[in-house]
Amino acid sequence: MSQKFEQWSPLRRRLHGIIFEAETVEGRLFDIILLLAILLSVIIVMLETVPSYQLQYGRLFTVLEWIFTFIFLIEYGLRIYCVKKPWNYIFSFFGLVDLMSILPIFLSLIFVGTQSLMIIRGIRLLRVFRIFKLVNFLSQGQIIMAALKASREKIFLFMIFILILVSIFGSLMYLIEGRTNAGFDSIPRSIYWAIVTLTTVGYGDISPQSPIGQFLASLIMIAGYSILAVPTGIVTGEIIKSSNRAYTESCPHCTKEGHAKGAKFCDQCGGILNP
Amino acid sequence: MSQKFEQWSPLRRRLHGIIFEAETVEGRLFDIILLLAILLSVIIVMLETVPSYQLQYGRLFTVLEWIFTFIFLIEYGLRIYCVKKPWNYIFSFFGLVDLMSILPIFLSLIFVGTQSLMIIRGIRLLRVFRIFKLVNFLSQGQIIMAALKASREKIFLFMIFILILVSIFGSLMYLIEGRTNAGFDSIPRSIYWAIVTLTTVGYGDISPQSPIGQFLASLIMIAGYSILAVPTGIVTGEIIKSSNRAYTESCPHCTKEGHAKGAKFCDQCGGILNP
Amino acid sequence: MSQKFEQWSPLRRRLHGIIFEAETVEGRLFDIILLLAILLSVIIVMLETVPSYQLQYGRLFTVLEWIFTFIFLIEYGLRIYCVKKPWNYIFSFFGLVDLMSILPIFLSLIFVGTQSLMIIRGIRLLRVFRIFKLVNFLSQGQIIMAALKASREKIFLFMIFILILVSIFGSLMYLIEGRTNAGFDSIPRSIYWAIVTLTTVGYGDISPQSPIGQFLASLIMIAGYSILAVPTGIVTGEIIKSSNRAYTESCPHCTKEGHAKGAKFCDQCGGILNP
Amino acid sequence: MSQKFEQWSPLRRRLHGIIFEAETVEGRLFDIILLLAILLSVIIVMLETVPSYQLQYGRLFTVLEWIFTFIFLIEYGLRIYCVKKPWNYIFSFFGLVDLMSILPIFLSLIFVGTQSLMIIRGIRLLRVFRIFKLVNFLSQGQIIMAALKASREKIFLFMIFILILVSIFGSLMYLIEGRTNAGFDSIPRSIYWAIVTLTTVGYGDISPQSPIGQFLASLIMIAGYSILAVPTGIVTGEIIKSSNRAYTESCPHCTKEGHAKGAKFCDQCGGILNP
Repeated sequence: MSQKFEQWSPLRRRLHGIIFEAETVEGRLFDIILLLAILLSVIIVMLETVPSYQLQYGRLFTVLEWIFTFIFLIEYGLRIYCVKKPWNYIFSFFGLVDLMSILPIFLSLIFVGTQSLMIIRGIRLLRVFRIFKLVNFLSQGQIIMAALKASREKIFLFMIFILILVSIFGSLMYLIEGRTNAGFDSIPRSIYWAIVTLTTVGYGDISPQSPIGQFLASLIMIAGYSILAVPTGIVTGEIIKSSNRAYTESCPHCTKEGHAKGAKFCDQCGGILNP
Repeated sequence: MSQKFEQWSPLRRRLHGIIFEAETVEGRLFDIILLLAILLSVIIVMLETVPSYQLQYGRLFTVLEWIFTFIFLIEYGLRIYCVKKPWNYIFSFFGLVDLMSILPIFLSLIFVGTQSLMIIRGIRLLRVFRIFKLVNFLSQGQIIMAALKASREKIFLFMIFILILVSIFGSLMYLIEGRTNAGFDSIPRSIYWAIVTLTTVGYGDISPQSPIGQFLASLIMIAGYSILAVPTGIVTGEIIKSSNRAYTESCPHCTKEGHAKGAKFCDQCGGILNP
Repeated sequence: MSQKFEQWSPLRRRLHGIIFEAETVEGRLFDIILLLAILLSVIIVMLETVPSYQLQYGRLFTVLEWIFTFIFLIEYGLRIYCVKKPWNYIFSFFGLVDLMSILPIFLSLIFVGTQSLMIIRGIRLLRVFRIFKLVNFLSQGQIIMAALKASREKIFLFMIFILILVSIFGSLMYLIEGRTNAGFDSIPRSIYWAIVTLTTVGYGDISPQSPIGQFLASLIMIAGYSILAVPTGIVTGEIIKSSNRAYTESCPHCTKEGHAKGAKFCDQCGGILNP
Repeated sequence: MSQKFEQWSPLRRRLHGIIFEAETVEGRLFDIILLLAILLSVIIVMLETVPSYQLQYGRLFTVLEWIFTFIFLIEYGLRIYCVKKPWNYIFSFFGLVDLMSILPIFLSLIFVGTQSLMIIRGIRLLRVFRIFKLVNFLSQGQIIMAALKASREKIFLFMIFILILVSIFGSLMYLIEGRTNAGFDSIPRSIYWAIVTLTTVGYGDISPQSPIGQFLASLIMIAGYSILAVPTGIVTGEIIKSSNRAYTESCPHCTKEGHAKGAKFCDQCGGILNP
């Protein structure tokens, strides 16, 4: 399969265009049908776990699942056949996801329950961006990713701080409520409660009963309220910076930076900007 | 009804001024009375569903509802009569809402329970902005709308990411807790739980019981905590940008609007801006 | 009491200095003692409502309450006696709060339960800012207040939007779950649930049971997640703008604005800034 | 121990290099082993409180705890031996944490239950930043710390406002629901509920039952929704400002740091900055 693309058979080149590109009518049609098939097969995997549906339509679900798996198996084979560098595809992110979309149903013949892993097919839906206004979406996504990447270290630092904080709060609550309240009967469980509280989720399956426990819980909540501001501040700062950068090109006449998107003239010296 | 406005009867022109404009004393009075009628009728629809009130005042509520519906019916007829282009009004957003405010009570004569749909009348309250400082509010609203519009693609991208994330987390929890915990007895239900957790709502009607389930839940919560920062960052960034743009005047040469703060030259035609 | 301040008796002038100012040692001491008395009396009002403490220390609490009320009564009389314009004080915000801090205990002789209103004394603690670094705190507070004031219209607009949204979501949930789920037995209650959900509080006392109800609830939660970003974005934008304004003075040489706090020279032309 | 570093014995100098620095291979190895030991010992302290594990592995846990405590005791002794200024170390933050990591197990011989305090060892994990990309992390941390420091007064002001708000809301709910709802049987408890609600945690262990109580609760939630925006806005504003300042170099004339982005002249001495 190491021949040059020009030497490929016409069928293989046509298939490549249909499967890997979205410029032609057939290519777009193929992508849309594939997305619908993925969506349907994911919905079936989900519905199959609902006891009442399983009782009524269990047989139908199994048949449909095998049909979809067969379709994805053929698609996987065709992708390997018509891609330029098969091994690059197989070990790429989407290549592995494609493989993992097919395997679970075969595993389920041996191990019971593994077919729920087919939900992993949902990740294939990310291909949707290939079809609808790809470029614009990706550039928007890149701004977010750049912002998250730039704030990675701050967020990591923040996470460690949060982990130490919930450990200390959890242990304190264990000491205070542990003897009287079944919800705080161990430190790991008290830490779980502290995370539930600090993130303002608040299930209420575990909640302090003693006045002093409720007082400490109040401190954690108010702390959580202020702490919540920190990651938001970090990410917001980076998104503002990174979306500024995205529209930035300096003026060749006066070196002024940070022009608006689509500007043709510098707004400080009136000189023409590079197109 | 296709005559010119100047050829209309004086009554019809007067009615048009009262119903569709808010400049005259009668026009304002009409709007205020209409808003009060809408508010009252919405409150009655709500109270009617409270069992104890229904028992005591059921008859009164029914009478009042028919009276309000009759008022709105007359108003709807007058609007059609005195509007310049009736079909444009009928199929406009407010025209359809006006119609849907009248229909449910007639439907309730045939189908039981449909009268709760009258709550749709509440949307008519949006007309309130016509009366109180319309212009200022709308310009403020436009800043928000512009910010939301500009962040539409980023938010949509984010939503798809969230949906895939909760599907995977929900399926994992189904595999972990599904057999022992009635709350996780199907994947759709587990996904519902993942959404409740990731958005930090946390009802607590479904909550993990096993240590490993609580550990995974903790990861989702801390992830939710950081993820919450992303839409806030996106919208904040856009609001800052869009409210910066809102403070500037149009170019006297090419009428381009929305220059950066402190701009001296138009970035579209290079002309000098008024200082 | 309409004489000029210079003609007042020395005692009255001295009292004025102690009670209304915080520059002298006596003035500061008076303020600190008063704050402690307020804090103590508020804590007693709170503890009095705890059944077990009430049983054990009820008599003590009553005595202490009358003592504190007596102290505040004397203080209130002295304030009226030594203020420059008594009626201005009496009808000022703090004048009314001071009066309302004394009244409830007398009302409680006639009406049972009204003494809990004494908690209103807590508002008097706002006087704390008079003592500790007043100026700095107030300027910080003014930045926040200016930001909230500037975003007032946007927030009000947003609130109306939220109210209409929860009314529609609440009514839909009433139609979907009303017949089978006791938590959604009326529209007002369903709207209460929608508010609890949209604000991500999520008590869990009312929660959807049917699959379609859980699906709609998921939509509300994800909507709430994105909507939460809007007020944060508005307030953040205003705080950034308003704290920029607070440090801003334009350069007299090149008119450049937005210098750092404490800057002595313009960072664009090097010219000296006005002190 | 007051001799000069150069006069120390080679062993002591070598130890100092290993224990207090992370440049040499031995130094890094020592740090990594120490971190693993701390992590393990913290996990053991946590697991020990889980009843089922305690029953099965209780003896093993006790042995391991004494081993780890012995290791940390030796480490503590070596640190005192080879540090330049022992007393400075002993009373430094990390010195006190190191001591408090050893003490609880000895206290547990006298007082039952105190060994959970060993969780304090977790704080020692903060040393992790010494090893992995120390400088970069610290500078990122400094941006966050600077932002929090700058917003300290605003946050403190905000906290006092929140405390007064929850006191008033809590007291109102006590007056409204106190007689019929066991969850609101005292003001402190009602304030606890108000904090749980305002911070959007919402356990649901206490929730309003009467229509008027649910109406007031709705007001608190919507208020909380808007109030949540304030600390986020404050911190975000400061992080943006503080990360702008972080990206610039010091003035070559007066060594002043933290100039605005794009500055050409130092704003303290007026000297030209390096381009």
